[in-house]
Order: sequence, then structure tokens, then C-alpha cells
Amino acid sequence: MANNVAPFFQALADPTRRRVIELLGDRAHRAGELAKAAGTSAPAMSRHLRILLETGLVADERVPDDARLRIFRLRREPVLALQSWLDQLQAHWNEQLGGFKRYVEEKEQS
Amino acid sequence: MANNVAPFFQALADPTRRRVIELLGDRAHRAGELAKAAGTSAPAMSRHLRILLETGLVADERVPDDARLRIFRLRREPVLALQSWLDQLQAHWNEQLGGFKRYVEEKEQS
Repeated sequence: MANNVAPFFQALADPTRRRVIELLGDRAHRAGELAKAAGTSAPAMSRHLRILLETGLVADERVPDDARLRIFRLRREPVLALQSWLDQLQAHWNEQLGGFKRYVEEKEQS
Repeated sequence: MANNVAPFFQALADPTRRRVIELLGDRAHRAGELAKAAGTSAPAMSRHLRILLETGLVADERVPDDARLRIFRLRREPVLALQSWLDQLQAHWNEQLGGFKRYVEEKEQS
């Protein structure tokens, strides 16, 4: 199973970063808006956003009228990768329902 | 958005625990099998399994013929909760495609 979800799980283990992702799930935000909504300082939010940018969970764009302003948005690929990881876990679910029985049977045969 | 996914993300931030979950996605395993497959010591695997049991990602059952033996399986509820969290992130995705444009327009109006 692909291990490319590792950085996403590490990034999302932090509650502030999960809150940022939830906020960006609604719409794009500026860093200042995210800091206010998540109740963090601007420097703390900058660190969280840098991690989210590095892992690829989030992308940023410049506002055309004001090059100093960046807005942050959620990237689709990590969400799809996490969904795929969970889907793979579920692929064998129907077999799992009989897994305990099968496990015991296999042990009895061996 | 519900915050009940917090313990799952924290538990899954660890690569060994993610590997355990992937192994249990295939079928139920004994602790010893998990330790061998994940390349950890038995005590280290015990600690990981305790965390996974506490968060509810994993359940254990006794083997009827041998009460000392426990097998571990994946629980469905956490997987569904994580999928629901990701689905909610995607709920506004089509709006997001126009999010940057909308953001600029809203700023121009205010």
C-alpha cells in the first residue's frame, strides 16, 4: 500500500492544522483570517501554514491587486490520497466480517 | 465540523501504527504476527496496540480455544468517521474552484 499519505497524517495530527484544513474546506482564507479563526498568533499560523504548504495539503496564491497578500486554499490531491488509503482499508471489509472465523480455521489446519 | 477524528489522526501519525492498520485492513492478526510484519519488538507492538485499542481504531477478540491468544481487527467506525471528515472537506469543492475569484470580489465590495 502506498506510503505517500505519511506526511498528511503527520501534518493533520496537530489540532490547529486540522482546524485550518476545515476552514479551507469552506473557502480560501488569508493567513490573518486563519490565525483569528483558529485563535493563534500570526507567527504561529505562519509556521503551521509553512508545514501545510510543504506537505502539499495547501496551496497559496497571490492576490493580483496586492502582491503582499496571499490567500490559502485546500489542494485536492492529498484529500484524494487519504480517501484512497481509507478505501483500500475497506476493500477487504466483507471478508473481515468472517475474518475471525477464518483465522481460527486456518490455525486449526496448520 | 465534528472533532471526533482527533485521536485517529494522532494515532495514525505514527508509521508503525499506520502499518498495523494496513495489515489489519487485509485480515485479523495476532500481536506476534503484527510485530514480525512491522519489524518491531513484541513490547513495542504491545504499546502501539494499546494506543490503537484506546482510540478505538482496533478491537481485540480472544481465541476460544486459547484464552491467552488475542487477535486484533480493524474497527469500522473510525474509518467511516475519517471518510466523513474528508467528504465534508470536499463538500464545497466546486465552490472552491471559483473561490479565489469570489474572494477577490468580496474584498472589492467591502
